[in-house]
Amino acid sequence: MSMKREIRVLGIDDSPFDKFSNRFVTVIGAFFRGGSHMDGLVSTRIAVDGNNATKKLSEMINSSRFKAQLKCVMIDGINMGGFNVIDIHKLNRSTKVPVIVVVRRRPDLPNIKRILTRLGMSRKIALLDKAGPPLKCGKIFIQFAGISFEEASEIVKLTATHSYLPEPIRVAHLIGAGLVFGESKGNA
Amino acid sequence: MSMKREIRVLGIDDSPFDKFSNRFVTVIGAFFRGGSHMDGLVSTRIAVDGNNATKKLSEMINSSRFKAQLKCVMIDGINMGGFNVIDIHKLNRSTKVPVIVVVRRRPDLPNIKRILTRLGMSRKIALLDKAGPPLKCGKIFIQFAGISFEEASEIVKLTATHSYLPEPIRVAHLIGAGLVFGESKGNA
Repeated sequence: MSMKREIRVLGIDDSPFDKFSNRFVTVIGAFFRGGSHMDGLVSTRIAVDGNNATKKLSEMINSSRFKAQLKCVMIDGINMGGFNVIDIHKLNRSTKVPVIVVVRRRPDLPNIKRILTRLGMSRKIALLDKAGPPLKCGKIFIQFAGISFEEASEIVKLTATHSYLPEPIRVAHLIGAGLVFGESKGNA
Repeated sequence: MSMKREIRVLGIDDSPFDKFSNRFVTVIGAFFRGGSHMDGLVSTRIAVDGNNATKKLSEMINSSRFKAQLKCVMIDGINMGGFNVIDIHKLNRSTKVPVIVVVRRRPDLPNIKRILTRLGMSRKIALLDKAGPPLKCGKIFIQFAGISFEEASEIVKLTATHSYLPEPIRVAHLIGAGLVFGESKGNA
């Protein structure tokens, strides 16, 4: 399969927050042409440890003016704003756009599930299971919906132009961090 | 003169605001390697129509961890947050970093000066004059401090990789607009 180098992708990350004082967290979406350059930015707010990440991301994506050309949404982890777990299959269905979740380190799922159970959020464990196990893809791991592992891997490879992370996610992370701290940290 | 392609530059733009209801406006600074990719973000807030842009930008630049490697600051217009006019020579002195102001269209200076006089801000006219006349540089105009026109032109050319605007300014603009409107407009 061959893919256009400058496909339009959206990289999404939440910004840092204080779980003891913040009820909401800003989520940044950076539109990119492949791994080359940014050509738009969207943002939304989700509830810390809430249940509205899937709905809010879906609205953000569907109302964006690049929606029609969007080939893929890449998300930095399946949990946004603490444990606001994304239902990636539902997000894919409601947007009709393939979804790739990028996981930097293999997650300790048994431990996450223990924490969710302890917090009374055991309903979210089903969402984690539903997303499928993170599969190794270069130096990172991915989960995906509405796209094959092979195609998802190709998009990750195509967009990871300046680090092992896809550029849209690296930049969405830098923006979120810089807005909250006044300055973002080095390599995403 | 030959210049390293991936010199570290900072592109600065303010975000949109409502002059009737906002007292402060967020200013975005995007650190770039040449015209290639972003590697950090800083932000600050300045007063709408205030007098603190020079001081705030200076603090933002001097406290950033990329300061030591910073070859140039590029600013989208000499007025931030309405008529919070930047003293580009003072900014250059207080940061020891060359300053380039990018002007998209040749400004109607006589009209701006009339407005400033009418608003009781005639003191700011001196800052506009002090910055020097915008000189044509490709499709845009520039003002500069602490750097020659030739070197400034070379940096503009080097960084304008995806449009006629330097990439750090194009992206700082997209970020500011996207945060305020929820979505930023097309080509900066």
